[in-house]
This record gives sequence, structure tokens and C-alpha cells, in this order.
Amino acid sequence: MSRQPLAVALVHHPVIDRRGDRVTTAVTNLDLHDIARTARTYGVSRYYVVTPVEEQQLLIARIIDHWREGFGAGYNPDRGNALSLVTTVANLEEALADWRALVGAAALPVLTGASRSDGISFAACRALAQEQPLLLVFGTGWGLAPELFERHWPVLVPIRGAGDYNHLPVRAAAAIILDRLVGEAGR
Amino acid sequence: MSRQPLAVALVHHPVIDRRGDRVTTAVTNLDLHDIARTARTYGVSRYYVVTPVEEQQLLIARIIDHWREGFGAGYNPDRGNALSLVTTVANLEEALADWRALVGAAALPVLTGASRSDGISFAACRALAQEQPLLLVFGTGWGLAPELFERHWPVLVPIRGAGDYNHLPVRAAAAIILDRLVGEAGR
Repeated sequence: MSRQPLAVALVHHPVIDRRGDRVTTAVTNLDLHDIARTARTYGVSRYYVVTPVEEQQLLIARIIDHWREGFGAGYNPDRGNALSLVTTVANLEEALADWRALVGAAALPVLTGASRSDGISFAACRALAQEQPLLLVFGTGWGLAPELFERHWPVLVPIRGAGDYNHLPVRAAAAIILDRLVGEAGR
Repeated sequence: MSRQPLAVALVHHPVIDRRGDRVTTAVTNLDLHDIARTARTYGVSRYYVVTPVEEQQLLIARIIDHWREGFGAGYNPDRGNALSLVTTVANLEEALADWRALVGAAALPVLTGASRSDGISFAACRALAQEQPLLLVFGTGWGLAPELFERHWPVLVPIRGAGDYNHLPVRAAAAIILDRLVGEAGR
């Protein structure tokens, strides 16, 4: 199956917290590693980590350096391999600009979230991914801030499991969504 | 879609390390939370955390207590809800005995791993999950120890992404496998 290039973005700002307030979440070591490894497994070209906080950007650089150049590179080269996908940016606009510079102006963000009921289906999103390069956008905390949903970008329907409980970790949601969109056909 | 009850087990011993040596890995806070939340989302009945190390069993109990009864219960009840699936056991035999006591003697372990090429397909495993209660077994570290593969239990084919890189976090693998086996049909 040939498809267009694909990127993912993990947004730490603007997102909402449990009360619905607009916040900036902290970057976690685990989100970096887990989503990088999943992205690498599914042939994703870029993993944008979005945070406007300079100290957090430095933290990301230090983690990547450890696994790309430092002790970790010898201990476990697969980690460095996955983390080579990471590009740190201050905001989603910067991620999109970088992605479009790489793959062309047709590159389109697709937003994800557990609370949207009006999104496009996985089948529609798979079709879209065949036609143009996508940037799959994931929110940390309690999800992407409402203002991002006012940009007229496509929104993917939420993952539904087996009941009403709907609190997947973003690491699990990213894995499931990538598998549904670009995973092997023969299941 | 009606199906039989389903359980998952996360094995910390016996597993192998990067050199293929038989080891016991440490329980991580994150594996507890992430896999519990994913299991809860997909209607899994039990999440067995397998470790023979008593201090680790106490650590698990302390984490669960924090989210079920302590500060965490008020702060984020969804976490406690998910962690209520966790049952700590010393070995896989104990997990299987407990699961069979709950759902009947037909309950069958299905092993998972990234390095087995001789396993049953996801379609075959979905069919199996309709017929009898399964216990999906995940390994930490570099995977389940070879001795577990000598028990004549079914083994699920590995997840394949888009290339040769095959280093999914166990948290991501559990999410993808549960989605493929029991996720909604309409994608």
C-alpha cells in the first residue's frame, strides 16, 4: 500500500486540564519514548513535540542527546533510532510550517480527541492519508484546547472501546490510531 | 458482538533481557496505569500483574491504594476505576488458576511477543475469543522467556508496522492488540 508521508504532533500547549481550563502540560520522558517508538514502527516521518516552554525544550534536547550520542546510544541504539524522528517546536503552526516545507503545502492537520463526536471516520481518514500528507495532532492533559477545533481542520472520531469508559492514555491512543490508519491490512 | 470474558497478564518473570538472559524486571507505575486504562476501555475483566518479588507486590498495592482510597481517588477517580482491574500474582500459573476459577476451566492463555513468526493470526485469535475466555499474556523487558513457549499455548503473530523496526513499548502493543481483537468493527 503506497501512501503519502505522515507526521504526528504531541501538543503540550494549548491543551485543557480536568476542569477545562487552558493550560500548558509538562513534557514527559515516557511520551517522548513511547510515541517515538510507535511512530517509528508505523513509518511516520516526523514526531513534533510542541511546547512553548524553553526549559522543556532543553529537557527534550537532553533526553534525545543521551540516547543519540550519550550512554544510551551504546546501551540501546533502537531508542536513539526512534528519537531521531523528534522535532521540537514552540507551537502547532511551527510544526505545520516545517512539515509543509518538507512534504508540500497540501499537508493537512487532523485533530484527535476523546470528546468529539462530529469527526471523520477512520475509513475516511485512511482515504485522506492516501491522497495527501497528514499531520496527526494529539493533545496531552485532558485534550487539545477548543481554539484548535476552530481552524476547520478535519477531526478524527474518538476511539471507542467496549463501554463508556473513555480514558485511554495518549500513548495508547496514538498507537491504536496509527495502527488503524496505516497498520498492515491482513489482520 | 458478544464475546467471552477476557483477561490480560503482564509478566515480569520469567522474561528475557536484551542479551537473551532470563531475568525479573521491575514493575513500573506507568505499565500499571497505562495497561489498566486500556484494559478498562476495552472491557477486559482482569489485569494480572505477575511478579514473584514481594517488595514489588507491596509497591503495586501501595500505588493502587493511593488511587483507590488515598489522595488520588478524589483527584482522579478514573484512575482508581481502571486500577480496580489489577490482581497481583506471583507467577503465570497463579494468574491462570485465578482466571479459571472465575470464568471456567476452558480459559486459555494466548502468548504475545515481537519475535515469534509461527503464531496464530489476529483473525484466528478473534474467533478464539468468541469461543472461550482468553488470558492475553504480555512480557516486559525483551519478551516472555522461552520456557513459556513450551507450554503448547497459542501464540499470537507479532504486530507488523511499516518496516523492519519492531520495538513497540509493551503498553502500545497491548493497546493495539486489544483494539484488533475486541475493538469496534466499524472503522
